[in-house]
Amino acid sequence: MASSEPLRVWAPRAKRVDLVLFPSEERVHCRPAPGGWFVAERAVLEPEQKYAFSLDGGPPLPDPRSADQPEGVHGPSRRVDFERFSWSDAEYGPVPLERAVIYELHVGTFTEAGTFDGVLAELPRLRALGITHIELMPVASFPGERGWGYDGVSLFAPQASYGGPYGLMRLVDACHREGIGVIVDVVYNHLGPSGNYLGHFGPYFTGRYHTPWGDALNFDGPGSDEVRRFVLDNARFWLEKYHVDGLRLDAVQTIFDQSPEHLLATLSREVAEFARASGRPLFLIGECDLNAARFITERPRGYGLDAQWSDDFHYALHAALTGERAGYYQDFGPLRPLARALTQGYALQGEFSRYRQRGQGAPPGNQPGRRFVVYSQNHDQVGNRPRGDRLTALVSEAKCTIAAGLTLLSPFTPMLFMGEEWGAPSPFHYFIDHAEPELRDAVRSGRQREMSEFGWENPETLDPSSEDAFHRSKLNACLAETDAAKRTFERYRSLIALRRKHPELQSDELKKVRAEFDEDERWLVLWRGRVGLLCNFSERPVSLRLPAFRPLFGEENLQDRGALTLLLPGLAVIEASRKKRSARR
Amino acid sequence: MASSEPLRVWAPRAKRVDLVLFPSEERVHCRPAPGGWFVAERAVLEPEQKYAFSLDGGPPLPDPRSADQPEGVHGPSRRVDFERFSWSDAEYGPVPLERAVIYELHVGTFTEAGTFDGVLAELPRLRALGITHIELMPVASFPGERGWGYDGVSLFAPQASYGGPYGLMRLVDACHREGIGVIVDVVYNHLGPSGNYLGHFGPYFTGRYHTPWGDALNFDGPGSDEVRRFVLDNARFWLEKYHVDGLRLDAVQTIFDQSPEHLLATLSREVAEFARASGRPLFLIGECDLNAARFITERPRGYGLDAQWSDDFHYALHAALTGERAGYYQDFGPLRPLARALTQGYALQGEFSRYRQRGQGAPPGNQPGRRFVVYSQNHDQVGNRPRGDRLTALVSEAKCTIAAGLTLLSPFTPMLFMGEEWGAPSPFHYFIDHAEPELRDAVRSGRQREMSEFGWENPETLDPSSEDAFHRSKLNACLAETDAAKRTFERYRSLIALRRKHPELQSDELKKVRAEFDEDERWLVLWRGRVGLLCNFSERPVSLRLPAFRPLFGEENLQDRGALTLLLPGLAVIEASRKKRSARR
Repeated sequence: MASSEPLRVWAPRAKRVDLVLFPSEERVHCRPAPGGWFVAERAVLEPEQKYAFSLDGGPPLPDPRSADQPEGVHGPSRRVDFERFSWSDAEYGPVPLERAVIYELHVGTFTEAGTFDGVLAELPRLRALGITHIELMPVASFPGERGWGYDGVSLFAPQASYGGPYGLMRLVDACHREGIGVIVDVVYNHLGPSGNYLGHFGPYFTGRYHTPWGDALNFDGPGSDEVRRFVLDNARFWLEKYHVDGLRLDAVQTIFDQSPEHLLATLSREVAEFARASGRPLFLIGECDLNAARFITERPRGYGLDAQWSDDFHYALHAALTGERAGYYQDFGPLRPLARALTQGYALQGEFSRYRQRGQGAPPGNQPGRRFVVYSQNHDQVGNRPRGDRLTALVSEAKCTIAAGLTLLSPFTPMLFMGEEWGAPSPFHYFIDHAEPELRDAVRSGRQREMSEFGWENPETLDPSSEDAFHRSKLNACLAETDAAKRTFERYRSLIALRRKHPELQSDELKKVRAEFDEDERWLVLWRGRVGLLCNFSERPVSLRLPAFRPLFGEENLQDRGALTLLLPGLAVIEASRKKRSARR
Repeated sequence: MASSEPLRVWAPRAKRVDLVLFPSEERVHCRPAPGGWFVAERAVLEPEQKYAFSLDGGPPLPDPRSADQPEGVHGPSRRVDFERFSWSDAEYGPVPLERAVIYELHVGTFTEAGTFDGVLAELPRLRALGITHIELMPVASFPGERGWGYDGVSLFAPQASYGGPYGLMRLVDACHREGIGVIVDVVYNHLGPSGNYLGHFGPYFTGRYHTPWGDALNFDGPGSDEVRRFVLDNARFWLEKYHVDGLRLDAVQTIFDQSPEHLLATLSREVAEFARASGRPLFLIGECDLNAARFITERPRGYGLDAQWSDDFHYALHAALTGERAGYYQDFGPLRPLARALTQGYALQGEFSRYRQRGQGAPPGNQPGRRFVVYSQNHDQVGNRPRGDRLTALVSEAKCTIAAGLTLLSPFTPMLFMGEEWGAPSPFHYFIDHAEPELRDAVRSGRQREMSEFGWENPETLDPSSEDAFHRSKLNACLAETDAAKRTFERYRSLIALRRKHPELQSDELKKVRAEFDEDERWLVLWRGRVGLLCNFSERPVSLRLPAFRPLFGEENLQDRGALTLLLPGLAVIEASRKKRSARR
């Protein structure tokens, strides 16, 4: 919205709407317009002037489409003059999803500053690492100074404590100048409980569907046309106004919609149209725990998302590496589900899941590998552990290298979690900063309960409202300068470089991928054409029968034993002289 | 289930399950079996012996899969020996949906007896009328002696007050001998509030989704594999054990399911497999108010139902005939939406609906006409009026004939509501027979509220719990013998015969159907090839320019005026000598 246009707000149940100007608190009557809209035609706002809306004479409330909440989610709104920012990213050549290596980061804990600007200094390092996109955990305004962001409530306003709108523009611009794309994590299934004023304005929510986090958004009931538009416009807003290259959609299985065209299909259609019109390879990645391929299947048969997170890859890999069997890991552990995840995207394809107490998923059909975003860890699977501990705290360096190799050389779209690339020892805790004591209590006890139900043996965890939970989660950049950290970084860098360069690793056709494994000896080989990822999950060497090969990575883990090759615990990557049918002795 | 097999029950949360035998009330311990099942291996039941299940020492509860509830929904269960019934319908040649003319009836009010057996005497009359299928409003056991059946709770047990299992077998068998198929209305979106013991046995319900009538069935949460199986087996049960030819699925838009394959798709797949295996043209018809074609689109893109009810056809026709604009009729009235419904199935295809306060529907795509079941009235749109009054009570005979003609000669699957074919004057009220006073009060006040919200001017209605509401709804067969009733019957009979015989009316390709209309003069012509349905909705004659023609029906409404033809109020059907581009003067 150009700042010369009058402010408008949708408030279909209001009889009267006033624009409230700050600091004077002058009220300007808004003209009713068709469809439940109100237009502040007579108001003249100074640049930077704060405002709010009053419904039927009530208190001032932030604009549902506020572009800026400088005083936080409970305070007044402010317009943003997007024309004011001079972009310098015209030369940026965006990387499409099939060549992406994603790096998930949380702005508040990625650097000591905890701001968008704080990220800038790290970009050369990320570029050297070889990542193509950073993925920002949600940046839409959430309550307080710190939080993961999934309880955001002002969906168009970048978090003030991160640096607000201009901070985000500077970050995206700087990323693009470094040749790095930006993905933003957006939450369209629910809103947070604090500072959520949308319900005062209109039927944004419905009681017909429930998410684990509260009422679902109303995408198919009375008034839903405008609620759908609100979300569709929000997605377009990030892509257009902030030059963002892709969106990660939180928990799409809780976006409930019985409409003829599911909201996600409408969204993917509109984003595809905008991508075509703007010549940019924009993409949408859904988080989804259903193993249901309709989300990533082309429209109109499916919803047309470009990719989805593959939790099964993580579950199978983590359980195989750690031996953990609590909660969602109880359906995993052997190498067989890992082999299936590595070759097909979903490990569970209809089998009964003890964790879910029902059949889980269905075969994904003929999907290209890029449609599955894979990771050995992410914010959730680290942060939802009682101690927020990373894989490095749980298993040997050899096993961490298997995790890195299978992720980065997979036929899928790999994603790293911030700090993973140098073995950061800091935990990643869950943290919030709600003002309301009852919400703080509810979150604390809710998480304790969840962790007990999950089956963690000792679910004692930091109070999410404590500053400690936040501060301990910060990456400690000076630790990245240790020799061990540098070795780890170099390992990640060389794996990414190998992914980029080796011809056998360019195709994401899953039918060219094959896995073989031995449950007893605990080894697994993932073949991508002639390239073999040799993984020894055990604590002792195993013998493999391999064709003539050239080592590509981890040569030190291979020992020639004549007809056999000894693989030490950990990872080696080879290029075989011919396609190999079996590495079994 | 053959009666020699041991009784089994799914009770995944129970520690102990006992079979309770009546009248001794002897308890027999059931053996736990995998998946939360319990098997009464040691119990020997006499034929006709009643039984129940006790969970963890609790009171006896009816079997969730009870085949017979001889004492009603709260009483004990009884097995049915399906082998005992000797079927005599081997010669029946089932009529596929594309040649169906359906007749919806409510067993309790169709005859004075109000039983399955009571229907038998009417079958010759229905056969003479030309209908191909009767559709029974729900027959699964519901509380008390009378009810529409949508609050059924024992989904495998035909209502005792209708005559129970053997009564239904006798009815289907007799229908088949008369060459008439049977469709049964089944409710898989919720269960009634009284006598619903399923929740004691397992997680049949979920709080994640709400229907307007209560908690939704759990088709995708923990434990849902068995709940899906319960419903899938129920559908198969009617088709296999009772020789039923098709199912009408109540309110499918409230069957909520996020699974990879929607329950309805699984159901249509299994029914199609059973139809192939048994060589019978079984079909599924969904009631759906979304105008969303996925329900009737082939799998895997859609859910693969064979047809859906087209409420838009009714709304558009009823509003055009009566001038009513309350509730769902407010989106209709002009001839344009009627013309669209007549040619495309859905009248609203994305347009904003004032009634629903959102855009409604989407274009149906290229569907054959048989996929839309059309009616000028059905149990809902008569019974949900404050006085339960039928179309005959609202408009002239001429207009009723338009309704009959457009329904029966449409390119869709026509359906009549019992008594319509002879102009029955009896209303059709809403009635229940709940034992619980609080439920009776809730239903009464709920309906009063709904009717007020709907916008009826005088929503005074009979108490649904009163015997009056039931008895006044009974068809009074002796009135069918009046001359007027016989004339009406003859009109319906001849329209159905015309539908059957005329070559131009055999195809249900909608692209061969064309409508033209004049909103000011209130006439509409529906062309099916060279056959024209000339409808004058006004109170005075209108002039049409027609090619040479042969009258097929309603010749008395046509007067030759040289180049023009005068059409009196009402309906005439003609066969034109050539395809006509326009009937405008």
